Amino acid sequence: MIDGAMLVGSEARQAAARFQSHDPASGQALTPDFSSATAEDVAQACALAAGAAPAFGATDPESRALFLETVASEIEAIGDDLIVRAMQESGLPRARLEGERGRTTGQLRLFAKVVRQGDWLDATIDPAMPDRAPLPRPDLRRMNIAVGPVAVFGASNFPLAFSVAGGDTASALAAGCPVVVKGHPAHPGTGELVARAIQRAVAACGMPEGTFSYLPGETNALGEALVADPRIKAVGFTGSRGGGLALMRIAAARNEPIPVFAEMSSINPVILMPGALAARGRALAEGFVQSLTMGAGQFCTNPGLVIAVEGADLDAFVAAAAEVMQGSAPQTMLSPSIHDNFAKGVSALAGHAAVETIARGQSETGANQAVAALFQTSAQQFLADVALSHEVFGSSSVIVRCQDLGEVAKVIASLEGQLTATLQLDDGDVEAARALLPVLADRVGRVLANGWPTGVEVAHAMVHGGPFPATSDGRTTSVGTLAIHRFLRPVAFQNLPAALLPAGIADENPWSVARRVDGVREGSPR
Amino acid sequence: MIDGAMLVGSEARQAAARFQSHDPASGQALTPDFSSATAEDVAQACALAAGAAPAFGATDPESRALFLETVASEIEAIGDDLIVRAMQESGLPRARLEGERGRTTGQLRLFAKVVRQGDWLDATIDPAMPDRAPLPRPDLRRMNIAVGPVAVFGASNFPLAFSVAGGDTASALAAGCPVVVKGHPAHPGTGELVARAIQRAVAACGMPEGTFSYLPGETNALGEALVADPRIKAVGFTGSRGGGLALMRIAAARNEPIPVFAEMSSINPVILMPGALAARGRALAEGFVQSLTMGAGQFCTNPGLVIAVEGADLDAFVAAAAEVMQGSAPQTMLSPSIHDNFAKGVSALAGHAAVETIARGQSETGANQAVAALFQTSAQQFLADVALSHEVFGSSSVIVRCQDLGEVAKVIASLEGQLTATLQLDDGDVEAARALLPVLADRVGRVLANGWPTGVEVAHAMVHGGPFPATSDGRTTSVGTLAIHRFLRPVAFQNLPAALLPAGIADENPWSVARRVDGVREGSPR
Repeated sequence: MIDGAMLVGSEARQAAARFQSHDPASGQALTPDFSSATAEDVAQACALAAGAAPAFGATDPESRALFLETVASEIEAIGDDLIVRAMQESGLPRARLEGERGRTTGQLRLFAKVVRQGDWLDATIDPAMPDRAPLPRPDLRRMNIAVGPVAVFGASNFPLAFSVAGGDTASALAAGCPVVVKGHPAHPGTGELVARAIQRAVAACGMPEGTFSYLPGETNALGEALVADPRIKAVGFTGSRGGGLALMRIAAARNEPIPVFAEMSSINPVILMPGALAARGRALAEGFVQSLTMGAGQFCTNPGLVIAVEGADLDAFVAAAAEVMQGSAPQTMLSPSIHDNFAKGVSALAGHAAVETIARGQSETGANQAVAALFQTSAQQFLADVALSHEVFGSSSVIVRCQDLGEVAKVIASLEGQLTATLQLDDGDVEAARALLPVLADRVGRVLANGWPTGVEVAHAMVHGGPFPATSDGRTTSVGTLAIHRFLRPVAFQNLPAALLPAGIADENPWSVARRVDGVREGSPR
Repeated sequence: MIDGAMLVGSEARQAAARFQSHDPASGQALTPDFSSATAEDVAQACALAAGAAPAFGATDPESRALFLETVASEIEAIGDDLIVRAMQESGLPRARLEGERGRTTGQLRLFAKVVRQGDWLDATIDPAMPDRAPLPRPDLRRMNIAVGPVAVFGASNFPLAFSVAGGDTASALAAGCPVVVKGHPAHPGTGELVARAIQRAVAACGMPEGTFSYLPGETNALGEALVADPRIKAVGFTGSRGGGLALMRIAAARNEPIPVFAEMSSINPVILMPGALAARGRALAEGFVQSLTMGAGQFCTNPGLVIAVEGADLDAFVAAAAEVMQGSAPQTMLSPSIHDNFAKGVSALAGHAAVETIARGQSETGANQAVAALFQTSAQQFLADVALSHEVFGSSSVIVRCQDLGEVAKVIASLEGQLTATLQLDDGDVEAARALLPVLADRVGRVLANGWPTGVEVAHAMVHGGPFPATSDGRTTSVGTLAIHRFLRPVAFQNLPAALLPAGIADENPWSVARRVDGVREGSPR
């Protein structure tokens, strides 16, 4: 079922150049070997995508929704082979990957609902006013259309939900954009299985040739060629800051610059408010270490920073967190390079003059094992060295001890953009938290209370985004239904004959979408 | 009333360095001379704007709407002095400027309505599901918040509607973003009058110090410093392609890259379909030349390209257009540099081996006079030289003669992104137009039928945007109420205590905004 092919439209083909994936738990190479797509393959996939764009963008909502649902069914139809392969390639446990598969197919089906419902069109009609003085008003109608072919770069840490058929692909297809996926080299077998499922769905639903292509490879040149291709109109990326910045530079330097939606780096501050710390320090310590070490800490929303006011309650929290962490088992990380970067980041913190090591998890000598790490420093020291705020991807976190809540606000305001910020607070903390809230909202895409940032709900109200460098564009999200808007753009139609109006804004409203007429939503009380 | 000051927050101050504006009709310098703001002034204005951002962003819709309406009233209260000064500085006639003033104040009042109505919040609530298995769903609420201080660069061709209190300023203030305007050096007196009106409105409405600043100047360094300032979070620009690209480069190179919404260049193709050309060639020629020469052709939506199929009907159209143009009077252009660029662009076309000059307007020897120009070439020649598709800002247009409708489609597909495309069509043209429509929509922000692209309605359904290089970001508009979304970003709030929820998404819905609950709009049938 996995033969190492790349998929260019409806074709499966083998490249001369090959690469291998590895089991991170054993370090051993896995079979088969995989095609390294070339610049020529990129050009062919993009040409097919550009050819497919008009017809795929014009599919009616029902057809497009059925296609998304068929992708979900085809992924499920792979069965346990998908889970087994993903376990081998990622080192992640079965339950996690089964959950992730459910999230992936659920996401596709949620976008199918969104496509049918039609709000994504933002259908807006300003009827003509032929008698208006001094000038008549024309009939003006606006709707969103697909931007065109989208390049998707999956992440290694979610080999299903943020990869070949992950959120970027689901939202781009939902928007009506053909997708060219650059496969992540850490899980090419998993990638191929899913890519073939999408290819089957394209065929089963009669979607245009080129609606989807899959280009595996392990060189930067492959991704660079894809972003530089003039037929690509937007990019979805989840990964490192360096990788995201490189793609942003290429996109900005094109003759036609295009948007890059890169989700890059975040340390997800957790603020322990005094009342909460006093009332439930032990429970907070347990919840914190659990969130920090889950999945070897390989989440974009991992709580890499804890901010609290000095005192006995904080001391007790630190002691409890240290105790819990010391009992935490080592876990296999996704790849040698991720493990190396984690080890380097932890070493740098451990060796930093202003940083104290509070605890480490249990160690083990196997390949690519993450040993959790907890550090502390003072707010003054934290504010003095920006390196202390850099992401260490994995189970590593720094506790920042502040003199008072004013210093807490200063530490928050000093941070770069983040995906999330979490407030642990009790009733007595509400007024102090109210003062912090605007500072937090200014820095993040999601503010949580009394929870943990790991675990990102796929929902209408979700924002998995935030100011740079959490993402390249804080006006969007990469998780949740709002993500479809990254790949749409508005077009106005003025005085078009009824026979030529697109269905989304035609008088007869054949798709039964909600429309705004003269600024007021149809059926709305105002 | 005009003393050459810059406005930094509530202060009016004079700079040591000065510059002058000129009456383009006479070439003579106007009094007084004006402050050239410095990098230090930029830093102070941005610091004030950053200080104002939290409080201004948190203003309730009614207060912010009243502020926008007060800006409109204060502009009207300037009275005829504003029109007289704008006429002197722009060479534009009184009626045009009175109309533009109405458009400017109407735009502010329309955004006030939008702010009150509340759809801009996109308030979205996914209620908690505490009993969901395997994991409970948290309470998740999302709303849009202001991105922070916005830099606005006005255009010379609309000294009111696209300048100090133009669409960019109106939409940024409506979004809750403080604005720092870089004043256009071609109309600094007009700019100062309007800036003082906004300053008075800030004071009258008790808006935070720094909500608005106005920095006149004529150096590129001033604008560059403004875009580079780390406190600026987005940029609105209308002007040349070179200017827009320069600002995009600066914004992309910042430590924190920010979006630049630049509206730059467009030649606005007009397609004359065979039926329309046969039935009403003479009327089309008259309408075309009127649209082309209005305001000396100094509109972003000026019809700089006509595409039609060869034949006697096209010959008749060309002859009629030539006749009308030959009778067209010269008009004063906005500035010597705009006139120079127009003259150079027309000379280049006139001297191009593949281009035939069809007609010129009446000539005159006064300063900065635009003499309209009409050219023709073949589709083959047009496709062979990209220079023929470059914008000549002013009353200059090229007719492209095609062998058939297939060649018409090829010419359209070859174009860079455009603000508009216009179809002149009769009933018999509908099927042929249907085939062209996706090609057109792919290239533009607005498709018109049987009208002319000049004259941009300020409306909910308007898109004054389009793929690069018409704008830097085709997912937005700079005219119409959708423009507010350029300066907003979504933030999610998870499990926040009721006492801390922002008003826009609080249970009690104090602002009475429309909300989406579980993906369905409240009060909606689906």
